[in-house]
Amino acid sequence: MFYTDGKLQYPVRVEKPDPLFARALQQAIGGIEGEIRVAMQYFFQACGARGNPKFRDLLMNTATEELGHIEMLATAVALNLEGAPLSEKEAVAADPVGSMVLGGINMKNLLSAGLSAMPVDSDGVPFDMSHIYASGNIAADMTANVAAESTGRVLAVRLYNMTNDPGMKDMLSFLIARDTMHQNQWLAALEELGGPQGVFPIPNSFPQEKEKQEFSYAFLGFQSDGTNPIAGRWSEGQSVDGKGKFTATPMQPLGQKPVLGQAKPGSGAQTEQM
Amino acid sequence: MFYTDGKLQYPVRVEKPDPLFARALQQAIGGIEGEIRVAMQYFFQACGARGNPKFRDLLMNTATEELGHIEMLATAVALNLEGAPLSEKEAVAADPVGSMVLGGINMKNLLSAGLSAMPVDSDGVPFDMSHIYASGNIAADMTANVAAESTGRVLAVRLYNMTNDPGMKDMLSFLIARDTMHQNQWLAALEELGGPQGVFPIPNSFPQEKEKQEFSYAFLGFQSDGTNPIAGRWSEGQSVDGKGKFTATPMQPLGQKPVLGQAKPGSGAQTEQM
Amino acid sequence: MFYTDGKLQYPVRVEKPDPLFARALQQAIGGIEGEIRVAMQYFFQACGARGNPKFRDLLMNTATEELGHIEMLATAVALNLEGAPLSEKEAVAADPVGSMVLGGINMKNLLSAGLSAMPVDSDGVPFDMSHIYASGNIAADMTANVAAESTGRVLAVRLYNMTNDPGMKDMLSFLIARDTMHQNQWLAALEELGGPQGVFPIPNSFPQEKEKQEFSYAFLGFQSDGTNPIAGRWSEGQSVDGKGKFTATPMQPLGQKPVLGQAKPGSGAQTEQM
Amino acid sequence: MFYTDGKLQYPVRVEKPDPLFARALQQAIGGIEGEIRVAMQYFFQACGARGNPKFRDLLMNTATEELGHIEMLATAVALNLEGAPLSEKEAVAADPVGSMVLGGINMKNLLSAGLSAMPVDSDGVPFDMSHIYASGNIAADMTANVAAESTGRVLAVRLYNMTNDPGMKDMLSFLIARDTMHQNQWLAALEELGGPQGVFPIPNSFPQEKEKQEFSYAFLGFQSDGTNPIAGRWSEGQSVDGKGKFTATPMQPLGQKPVLGQAKPGSGAQTEQM
Amino acid sequence: MFYTDGKLQYPVRVEKPDPLFARALQQAIGGIEGEIRVAMQYFFQACGARGNPKFRDLLMNTATEELGHIEMLATAVALNLEGAPLSEKEAVAADPVGSMVLGGINMKNLLSAGLSAMPVDSDGVPFDMSHIYASGNIAADMTANVAAESTGRVLAVRLYNMTNDPGMKDMLSFLIARDTMHQNQWLAALEELGGPQGVFPIPNSFPQEKEKQEFSYAFLGFQSDGTNPIAGRWSEGQSVDGKGKFTATPMQPLGQKPVLGQAKPGSGAQTEQM
Amino acid sequence: MFYTDGKLQYPVRVEKPDPLFARALQQAIGGIEGEIRVAMQYFFQACGARGNPKFRDLLMNTATEELGHIEMLATAVALNLEGAPLSEKEAVAADPVGSMVLGGINMKNLLSAGLSAMPVDSDGVPFDMSHIYASGNIAADMTANVAAESTGRVLAVRLYNMTNDPGMKDMLSFLIARDTMHQNQWLAALEELGGPQGVFPIPNSFPQEKEKQEFSYAFLGFQSDGTNPIAGRWSEGQSVDGKGKFTATPMQPLGQKPVLGQAKPGSGAQTEQM
Repeated sequence: MFYTDGKLQYPVRVEKPDPLFARALQQAIGGIEGEIRVAMQYFFQACGARGNPKFRDLLMNTATEELGHIEMLATAVALNLEGAPLSEKEAVAADPVGSMVLGGINMKNLLSAGLSAMPVDSDGVPFDMSHIYASGNIAADMTANVAAESTGRVLAVRLYNMTNDPGMKDMLSFLIARDTMHQNQWLAALEELGGPQGVFPIPNSFPQEKEKQEFSYAFLGFQSDGTNPIAGRWSEGQSVDGKGKFTATPMQPLGQKPVLGQAKPGSGAQTEQM
Repeated sequence: MFYTDGKLQYPVRVEKPDPLFARALQQAIGGIEGEIRVAMQYFFQACGARGNPKFRDLLMNTATEELGHIEMLATAVALNLEGAPLSEKEAVAADPVGSMVLGGINMKNLLSAGLSAMPVDSDGVPFDMSHIYASGNIAADMTANVAAESTGRVLAVRLYNMTNDPGMKDMLSFLIARDTMHQNQWLAALEELGGPQGVFPIPNSFPQEKEKQEFSYAFLGFQSDGTNPIAGRWSEGQSVDGKGKFTATPMQPLGQKPVLGQAKPGSGAQTEQM
Repeated sequence: MFYTDGKLQYPVRVEKPDPLFARALQQAIGGIEGEIRVAMQYFFQACGARGNPKFRDLLMNTATEELGHIEMLATAVALNLEGAPLSEKEAVAADPVGSMVLGGINMKNLLSAGLSAMPVDSDGVPFDMSHIYASGNIAADMTANVAAESTGRVLAVRLYNMTNDPGMKDMLSFLIARDTMHQNQWLAALEELGGPQGVFPIPNSFPQEKEKQEFSYAFLGFQSDGTNPIAGRWSEGQSVDGKGKFTATPMQPLGQKPVLGQAKPGSGAQTEQM
Repeated sequence: MFYTDGKLQYPVRVEKPDPLFARALQQAIGGIEGEIRVAMQYFFQACGARGNPKFRDLLMNTATEELGHIEMLATAVALNLEGAPLSEKEAVAADPVGSMVLGGINMKNLLSAGLSAMPVDSDGVPFDMSHIYASGNIAADMTANVAAESTGRVLAVRLYNMTNDPGMKDMLSFLIARDTMHQNQWLAALEELGGPQGVFPIPNSFPQEKEKQEFSYAFLGFQSDGTNPIAGRWSEGQSVDGKGKFTATPMQPLGQKPVLGQAKPGSGAQTEQM
Repeated sequence: MFYTDGKLQYPVRVEKPDPLFARALQQAIGGIEGEIRVAMQYFFQACGARGNPKFRDLLMNTATEELGHIEMLATAVALNLEGAPLSEKEAVAADPVGSMVLGGINMKNLLSAGLSAMPVDSDGVPFDMSHIYASGNIAADMTANVAAESTGRVLAVRLYNMTNDPGMKDMLSFLIARDTMHQNQWLAALEELGGPQGVFPIPNSFPQEKEKQEFSYAFLGFQSDGTNPIAGRWSEGQSVDGKGKFTATPMQPLGQKPVLGQAKPGSGAQTEQM
Repeated sequence: MFYTDGKLQYPVRVEKPDPLFARALQQAIGGIEGEIRVAMQYFFQACGARGNPKFRDLLMNTATEELGHIEMLATAVALNLEGAPLSEKEAVAADPVGSMVLGGINMKNLLSAGLSAMPVDSDGVPFDMSHIYASGNIAADMTANVAAESTGRVLAVRLYNMTNDPGMKDMLSFLIARDTMHQNQWLAALEELGGPQGVFPIPNSFPQEKEKQEFSYAFLGFQSDGTNPIAGRWSEGQSVDGKGKFTATPMQPLGQKPVLGQAKPGSGAQTEQM
């Protein structure tokens, strides 16, 4: 169960409203790197976390924080849209290259939302909840979370670099710091789950003797000239999970051309296929 | 540029066609954990890889492998659909609980594809290319790839456990082994990029003194009773990126209730909002 | 069955083509507040209307009108795109800030449709038919229709305020009038179905003694300080459906922390979860 | 900002796990009538509420409640999936018509989520955030909320009628009661905003003399034989908004056949179109 | 503008309701081969048809027919759902393998629509209007229409073969006949536009001397062993558009490995990429 | 199985980077007319091709070519984004109407991809794999391919006309030539399958005596005044498939108004519907 006090986790201040930056901020709300994604991802991971309950608590606690981040960003979008023009006439009056602003914003922020935030990305595409990765495997979930916070912080940095507004820079410096923590937090959870050698390969519950082991640590080449691709840490030495040694080899097809049967009569194919 | 020989990377053999398992295999083609996802993700990451060209080569090489995995799985789906009933009459004739089979498959595999594979998941939802995470930050991309291969191997293991068909188990034991390698491969790439302390926080190009540093390694609590959530590796000790020390503290709102201006005249709001 | 005469329900005239306004008009075609939505929503509601056939007739009649509105708006989009530039060179020639226009339009209107209308919204996102609310409950459908016409008229007003073109203003003044009627029409249908006290709570066929009645008219508070949120008509007095009295109280959790079982062996979880 | 105590708002108890009912419950999580929808809808409406701040508080308070409903339902799904078969062999062993169960569930609940809840509907389609109606017009928002709670309660009633499990019936009797309240609550908010005559037509800020008023209260007929469709409350008498009188008349086209110009040279059309 | 008489174009009769067949029929409503698709495709093509107005008329006339086909199929779905069980208890009572039926239907037809039709496909995926191909090139549109009617008739044939119900077979024999006509109709339109040699390559308005003509009629091979793929009508002889001669040759890459610049400072990449 | 050499099929050169043109090029990657679509469409058609294996080879060979086209275009997008501004300050510095550029691009190319290509269209909408038409009927597939290459070439021509960059014009002249070939190639495959009279109506395996033949070659009119729509090749003479004679006649409804039963008790409808 959840509670609110209606206040913002961190102050949101806009000195000079900038409708184009409002559009960019939408990515941090409804983009795949955005706050809806992490809030809902941690929420659903928490709800499906089996085993040690500490992970459920950890996940739901941070899901709760992320809900507050959506609220902050939605406020920032609305404040940046203050004073956005409602018509080309108004736009041109405000600015010699005025209708540019009208053309540059997500029009739905104006037409659908009346100059408020929406759960869409910076091109107006609505967030799709298929991006909530919650696998039922706690370690896979943690890797997904490290990835989410990595792209999240990359986005926040790009937004920070895009604006000159001191209020926005301040808000983003807070969100960037939180992304630093959250990257570290999920990495710490992976350590608690056993570190690279305890955790990988995910899932660690599958007996590796059942996999076709000659391919488990082989860096396979698919170069048309039959050579291996570029060498690196991945092509020799101990594997990162500690359970094998990297090798490298060009791949040859082991199977043949697939042969499907004729089409079934009545299956809607052409006569020639039957 | 790409080439093909029309052969399968690894043999695909189905001893007893099973239309319900065909449905499950669709998840490995068009699910978010599936092969279209990794093939296209590595492809686009390669195309946008700036800096050391070895990462472009590494990514495109493995993208090329994954294309062959889609081909293998599409063959497996078609072979499992061989002999699937085209009508309830046929279904009931084949099996005392026959129409079950017709009800249990993705109907589009029959109605849209004539008993062949489709780029959809196990519930018939088409794959959506927003799941291609290619951030322009090579380290963020690698974390996304570790995550993709982790959920991918979890899926492959679930499929392995679901079937009794020796041919399918053999094919999946190969794909599981490849997922083992690919998890290790992307982890190795992260090592080559500097390991946890060189790589994190991602992006490592943002000067951390610009972030609001008192929150960079703080585990914040959002418990309604003002306590911290459960302690763990994430609440004390050195941070995983080696750049801070974890602390823990309950969060208090630092901002106030947001106050938006009145609605603009002409903005389509109610009169009472203006 | 349907018929057409190929004529427009109301004249569509554009005095000065405006590609940016064409983009805005797309929202009224393929936005969630747009005409495809209402046309198809009334259509499917009609097809599923059980009980008194007058509602089927009412719905299909108005669905038929809305089809004509799509036609009007598609014409308006094409006319506003007349003369839109096909290249930046052409754009710059036409206008000192010319490529702005090219950047401001939905590019698909040019690239996919050759300067014609599309079933997409003002940011180029295609309409998704999940927005067709047709519940099988005639009263729920009517509330959905009131809502659809409310956001529809808000949108039409925003478009009216955005343009200076007399032809466009005339067309929109007609569409706004129709939205006025349609709001009233669905409200009238709700009256015919019994008015607030006969209709609500929807569905009225569920025996209210089966609901957990101490919560049926209670305004519950989720404020972190344990107080109630702001009072209003909703916190005291007779309920609008006439079947209860509003009360207000802070909520306490009645359940415990959820406890799921361990992960099943073979379920693809980590060993630690089993 | 938000807080949690990790407890459920109301107890969630499943006496006999039923994987097929788990599938049905997914509709109440990720369906368009579900809890993610209302939680996020009220959340975004709150964030964009301009004018009297009491509506922001009202909306965010109830958004907070709905977050707890997602949590309850996600728990209910996971509990109903306890003991679901992981393979056909297991399914057949458990039940003479066993693989039916495997065919009947959303396969992603097994394959993607490891027998946990997901933000998808009962057919496995992910929730799409375009369903968050937050218009910037407070009255339009309230009508959308009445509609959402109406379809929400219809769904909850259908779920109640579908199950025999006492725990599930108890949980649903609570959720149905809350839907009763929420329908009334938003209707009460509409009363506070002025009731039908103060609120409609939405937006009430548009001067009605600017609309083409001869069509504002006219029930137009689109019957192919030129008659009016069925009469009703909507075809005569005072309009519900109190600002006009209903009339009824068959519609004649007022416009002509649309004539677009020739295709522009270089626009990618056929030569014959230029 | 459109009109209706509320009657069905062709009788829709169901002798024995079959909920599973209702699910299959949904594909013909909301599938990519379905009637919403063709109705809306012809509608938007008509609205954007430039040049000879006869094509606009032709397209809008047939769009109008297809609207009536949606109506027929929506009726067929509802009639097949008559008597579908609302609960497992009811399902089991009706049928020894009863809950199969409940598991086999699109659950949304029950839960969202109350046993009525929806604009979704046979797996419950909503129709997405991006499938409306309306290119602004009349010949490209006609090829898209031939393709749509081809997959449409394939689907109708599969449905015909799936059912034993005489009423449904009769309805489908009518729809199949209409698809026969519509395939021929759009082929006839292509003839009227000049036939293969006048129409192709589409668009015929682009001067072919501007294309890299040595590749315009070359069948290029991408076989890894450097051979050409299988020969056929496409590898020698006159091209179908009559403007060239087919040749065949293996492809060699003409470009080099792409080299992107370093990542820009401040672009959110890793330091190592700059 | 697939191979790569990392080189481009044809040189990709950009003389003057143009971020707005990068946006337009995205349509050729992730638009419905783009290269992902054809690559994946031919791929899945190949995997499901039953009957003569030459079609599988033909399809997979060309799928392999198209993969290389995605690679070319992704390179072109990245090169056009070189030097795109990362902030409004930078934008304004570069150009008197600078922020126009920032407003005109797909923001996700900057914010999500760091100035690289994405699998999205020119308005930032991700490609959706439901556009992969692979029907299991080889002739229907070929018509879909002709349609895909027709809209594809229309798009390429529009892009060619939009740019002045010699490198981009050169690349597009190559892609246009390939589209010419691919249109001809699939038309040639239709000839090999029997030409219009052997192939149509698709599927040719359905006995035409089972269709309601009086409607198989009838051009039906849906004009509200009871006349036929405009005459043409489609209204008289031999049908294109050679199996009938075109006739023309206005349509009369053959069915009645649909009558559904009352709503079932317990189905969540209003009491009035039962």
